[in-house]
Amino acid sequence: MKKLHIGVMGPGDDATESDIKIAYELGELIAKNGWILLSGGRNVGVMNSVSKGAKLNNGLVIGILPHNHEREASEYLDIVIKTDMGQARNNINVLTADIIIACGSGSGTVSEVALGVKADKHVILINAGKSGELFFKELTPDRIHIANTAQEVIGIIGKLSN
Amino acid sequence: MKKLHIGVMGPGDDATESDIKIAYELGELIAKNGWILLSGGRNVGVMNSVSKGAKLNNGLVIGILPHNHEREASEYLDIVIKTDMGQARNNINVLTADIIIACGSGSGTVSEVALGVKADKHVILINAGKSGELFFKELTPDRIHIANTAQEVIGIIGKLSN
Amino acid sequence: MKKLHIGVMGPGDDATESDIKIAYELGELIAKNGWILLSGGRNVGVMNSVSKGAKLNNGLVIGILPHNHEREASEYLDIVIKTDMGQARNNINVLTADIIIACGSGSGTVSEVALGVKADKHVILINAGKSGELFFKELTPDRIHIANTAQEVIGIIGKLSN
Amino acid sequence: MKKLHIGVMGPGDDATESDIKIAYELGELIAKNGWILLSGGRNVGVMNSVSKGAKLNNGLVIGILPHNHEREASEYLDIVIKTDMGQARNNINVLTADIIIACGSGSGTVSEVALGVKADKHVILINAGKSGELFFKELTPDRIHIANTAQEVIGIIGKLSN
Repeated sequence: MKKLHIGVMGPGDDATESDIKIAYELGELIAKNGWILLSGGRNVGVMNSVSKGAKLNNGLVIGILPHNHEREASEYLDIVIKTDMGQARNNINVLTADIIIACGSGSGTVSEVALGVKADKHVILINAGKSGELFFKELTPDRIHIANTAQEVIGIIGKLSN
Repeated sequence: MKKLHIGVMGPGDDATESDIKIAYELGELIAKNGWILLSGGRNVGVMNSVSKGAKLNNGLVIGILPHNHEREASEYLDIVIKTDMGQARNNINVLTADIIIACGSGSGTVSEVALGVKADKHVILINAGKSGELFFKELTPDRIHIANTAQEVIGIIGKLSN
Repeated sequence: MKKLHIGVMGPGDDATESDIKIAYELGELIAKNGWILLSGGRNVGVMNSVSKGAKLNNGLVIGILPHNHEREASEYLDIVIKTDMGQARNNINVLTADIIIACGSGSGTVSEVALGVKADKHVILINAGKSGELFFKELTPDRIHIANTAQEVIGIIGKLSN
Repeated sequence: MKKLHIGVMGPGDDATESDIKIAYELGELIAKNGWILLSGGRNVGVMNSVSKGAKLNNGLVIGILPHNHEREASEYLDIVIKTDMGQARNNINVLTADIIIACGSGSGTVSEVALGVKADKHVILINAGKSGELFFKELTPDRIHIANTAQEVIGIIGKLSN
């Protein structure tokens, strides 16, 4: 049976320290639950930190890159998907994820939350900011979940995937 | 010299009557200004209404479809781009538009606003709702413009394209 | 009623003088027939020459670019579609074209011929080379047409679109 | 260090018995060499058979699907990438593969060979047919390799990846 594919989306260069810390914990917990991690795969911000957290805990780590090369790929990836599609690859990320976590905020991340709910996926927000939470909760109340810690995120995934 | 390509994004099946009325006026005004209109091209909601407004006023009308066929295309298109990429075509819409108008709200439209500012485009919101306006204005203040009427939208385009 | 969208595919930097001469004639004839031209839109080779031929004869000219910018776009385009998808945009070219002309040869052009017949389109080869003609005629005999002059290409389009 | 990603492309519904037999052997040998397999991921033809061969020999198996769902996915996949891009996903397949094997022929497969050499990848042909071999060998002699057995394919990969 296919293992759960968990997509973690979040800012690259503009990630906050808190985003990066939570992303690492998410990666660790995803790996320890035996789930597969996927992210945007770049070597910065949430993408790099979540990949590191999963890889150092023996997780299987996929990166879906916007590029046609690996020069800016995280070193913690097992599988490197090169799309050469820029931000259009965000749609592949959300379609491939069985459940989506958005950690932090930024225009790329917001596009992934929106594409996620458009594709009828469950999206868990953490560190999204007050106005982002309000906005998305109003847009699609039954698809948006809000968590305050990595542990809470994992709890929500557990319930959703039962 | 290339004429300005104005992208009008907005909901399909979930468009409100007000969205549809404003979309028609936008299409009309875009055509009368000699600009080229592009939208998601479907035969419903904002996409259909803005195309109709432009076409009936002798505008040039492009639809960038999510499909590989024309069965759900607006009848008011001159040019039908068939992408077969689902929602990933939203990124083509925003990259192709010199200036983006988001008329109404919904998850697809929100993804286009986010992809638009990610691509450093100016995005004019109309009928976006209070929480959407607040959220996007906070996310990228210098790229988001807010209008209350189709005429105001056109005024903003005039300033931005000077 | 939508006007016929004719896609002309062909090499960029590696186009031969003969490819470029025929491409110009094709553009001219497409415009004079009142059809809409689309190509890969770059400012080199077949793409540039066919666009020039159509534009200088009052045709409507679309370019579907692999880039997210216009710096390498042909100056003869009316409509510039920016995909930022590299060679994946070849599939949009063939899906958008009602009938496809491949003028010359090269790996990008070959991918478009193959994607064209995969999408059940008619593809007219000119200047494809002997082994290319043999190969594609064997692959999908009923979809591949072979012409020796721009006039012959137009004749085939006339028959196919009746 | 990233393990080699080997892409195996080939027909789905139109695969011959010989294509399917060789695909199984390729999957088996790719797994035994510790390489990662990727294919178009569908539950038919070469895609399904190569995935089965790898999976039953403890390989790691990726499928890059044209769809936004898993209903037609091979049951032998570990990782299911859902692109919703139709044949445009062929370009992701070839960019993601470090080395490409084309097993059998057909318009989709031909597009992948062409996109592969366009992206400067090495492509190994097996069961491509005489006119296909001639055509591609003439098109890009230094990128096209021809093999007659699965063992020969593996030998060529060994040399190319040293």
